[in-house]
Amino acid sequence: MTKAHASIVQGDLQDQKITNYESPLGVTRTQTIALPGLRTQSGFTFDQVEISYQTLGKLSSEKDNAILICHALSGDAHVAGMNPDTGRPGWWDFHVGPGRAIDTDKFFVICANVLGGCNGSTGPASIRPDTGKPYGMNFPTVTIRDMVAVQTRLIGHLGITRLFAVVGGSMGGMQALVWALDYPECVHTCLPIATCTSHSAMQIAFNEIGRRAIITDPNWNGGNYTADCRPKHGLAVARMVGHVTYLSEFAMTRKFGRKPQIQYAAVEDSPADFSVEGYLHHQGQSFVKRFDPNAYLYLTKALDQFDLFENVPVAEALRRVKAHFLVISFVSDWLYPPPQSRDLVRLLKRANVPVTYINLETEYGHDSFLIENPAFASVVRHYLENEYHQARN
Amino acid sequence: MTKAHASIVQGDLQDQKITNYESPLGVTRTQTIALPGLRTQSGFTFDQVEISYQTLGKLSSEKDNAILICHALSGDAHVAGMNPDTGRPGWWDFHVGPGRAIDTDKFFVICANVLGGCNGSTGPASIRPDTGKPYGMNFPTVTIRDMVAVQTRLIGHLGITRLFAVVGGSMGGMQALVWALDYPECVHTCLPIATCTSHSAMQIAFNEIGRRAIITDPNWNGGNYTADCRPKHGLAVARMVGHVTYLSEFAMTRKFGRKPQIQYAAVEDSPADFSVEGYLHHQGQSFVKRFDPNAYLYLTKALDQFDLFENVPVAEALRRVKAHFLVISFVSDWLYPPPQSRDLVRLLKRANVPVTYINLETEYGHDSFLIENPAFASVVRHYLENEYHQARN
Repeated sequence: MTKAHASIVQGDLQDQKITNYESPLGVTRTQTIALPGLRTQSGFTFDQVEISYQTLGKLSSEKDNAILICHALSGDAHVAGMNPDTGRPGWWDFHVGPGRAIDTDKFFVICANVLGGCNGSTGPASIRPDTGKPYGMNFPTVTIRDMVAVQTRLIGHLGITRLFAVVGGSMGGMQALVWALDYPECVHTCLPIATCTSHSAMQIAFNEIGRRAIITDPNWNGGNYTADCRPKHGLAVARMVGHVTYLSEFAMTRKFGRKPQIQYAAVEDSPADFSVEGYLHHQGQSFVKRFDPNAYLYLTKALDQFDLFENVPVAEALRRVKAHFLVISFVSDWLYPPPQSRDLVRLLKRANVPVTYINLETEYGHDSFLIENPAFASVVRHYLENEYHQARN
Repeated sequence: MTKAHASIVQGDLQDQKITNYESPLGVTRTQTIALPGLRTQSGFTFDQVEISYQTLGKLSSEKDNAILICHALSGDAHVAGMNPDTGRPGWWDFHVGPGRAIDTDKFFVICANVLGGCNGSTGPASIRPDTGKPYGMNFPTVTIRDMVAVQTRLIGHLGITRLFAVVGGSMGGMQALVWALDYPECVHTCLPIATCTSHSAMQIAFNEIGRRAIITDPNWNGGNYTADCRPKHGLAVARMVGHVTYLSEFAMTRKFGRKPQIQYAAVEDSPADFSVEGYLHHQGQSFVKRFDPNAYLYLTKALDQFDLFENVPVAEALRRVKAHFLVISFVSDWLYPPPQSRDLVRLLKRANVPVTYINLETEYGHDSFLIENPAFASVVRHYLENEYHQARN
């Protein structure tokens, strides 16, 4: 562990209290672009969509070193470097930067906030041109494939026709899979991490509990809440549910056990007996400040309705694939359990798609891909280096 | 599977739609008794507490065949037989009755609603004598040991000085453990099922999410809600969280998978895409009709604060124990995972307490103890028969 990391508590860089941490990338910024005309899978047509994105590193003259990183449910475009608005590092700063697993000295990294999100890209909180008011629940259904369709345009705008790699965990992994299957000519390597080809009943169930907490909060008001009166309690409960499912029993025992509440005592309006309770309150409240409740509804629906093989038979869909795959899962991940990744690997192998599969022995559950993790970093770094070397020779 | 059971969907007898099921016990009833003077662990004195309880079978002339069954969080005194008020069988009708695992032809079965509950026993919804209004959040903190203290008085009232067995799953298992440790002269055999000696951080976390959903529901109103304006949305979300944790991923996949919503379409105000969503809405709404939100807060706190060894060192506490133990866990139970039972068994063995441990290969998660389960029934039946035979000879 480097000195720079020493003060970071185990966990998501977005939600932890971070002091004295400096990203090797320094301050980085996102930018926003308006992309013309998009028709969603559900048949809604946007005249244009705004997309917030970040690029890091330099595109090679051959334009062969671009890596698209797709974020998960609560992520955003700010993948690495210090965010000047929040004073926090990007959500994958551990793994993206000079000399890191995804090496910005070698690769040109792109990360865009998804369509339907709430961090700079068009989503339910965006102003609807014809009414001058937020879309709210009139925003069209968004799918993982819609998110990817927007990314293809962004890539085109950046002058790239083929990505060296598409990388993503959880919801980001679903996007990576869609890239490889639906845009086979555009992807050299695909790294789906802690993800699946479709949600199980249990995954749907946890998302539905979160949605239910939001829409039964009276402040939700059919999605027409105001900035002063948001369904913050419902969203906080949704985030608390999410957070528990992202961790492992082991990680929670080690981090909290039955310790009494002290650490987050400053959290308003949330008496707690146990440390784990205060931690969850804190997670809920900090999420409420940075996330839009309607976006949470739309994105979790996109997750639940995703089916990689919805359009064509499995064998046919995989026959088109040209990418090489590195599939990664985590032994302690019970939300996206390793058998889901193994099922994917089995399908890929059956279709003679080159695939490497690693089931990593981390102890931090689904969050394992978001936290500092030397084994994970090493696997990703070496795979990308080898693939890039082979692609150029 | 008998014909009588054929129409029961896998699951808790309390919450399933049940048709054409007849308990072999026919209609049974609970009764209520007022027990004098009780001081809680927290120091509150009740002049009297009302306790709802049920007895089944006949007490032997030697008074040596009494089995106390302790219910779990959402259970009640009506353990078996048809409840004339609800038209439903008791929550353990599968396992308690003539010829069943706990055979009412041989044993005298007692089951009482816990102190702090909401099904006939004194709890937060009870009327406070000095104000004429419900206790609400002025009800004193209730512990598992307080629940057991009340049960000791009930047993005394029934003229029993020593229980042949104390049996319970989950929260009921905690009560069974307290009986064996704190009242060693009063217990011949102890059957803690799918339980633990104290909650882990993860178990606390899931309970806290449920509590948070309730207390952030505006209708909760500091616990002073009215019958017409209860925090039903919060309680429903709490129950949904509970329900998912009671099931296994396998059980949910087999029962629901990604099936579209059809079955529970009649549930008001809850559009659902997937069957599992409709099922959870149904569970939430049916629970709201039968459970008091404040009682849910108090009982989950009792669970979280329970520590079997809070008073004395482990070795000393176990040295006093005279009961024989049958400890049962379920492989697929991830809420009260088998290692928690194994830890208990290890402590008992180290203290030379006679203990049999069975980790059953059921696939239905924590709920495994509540559903029809021939392997479970067989283990319990034979253990009780052997122990009873030995005790009498």
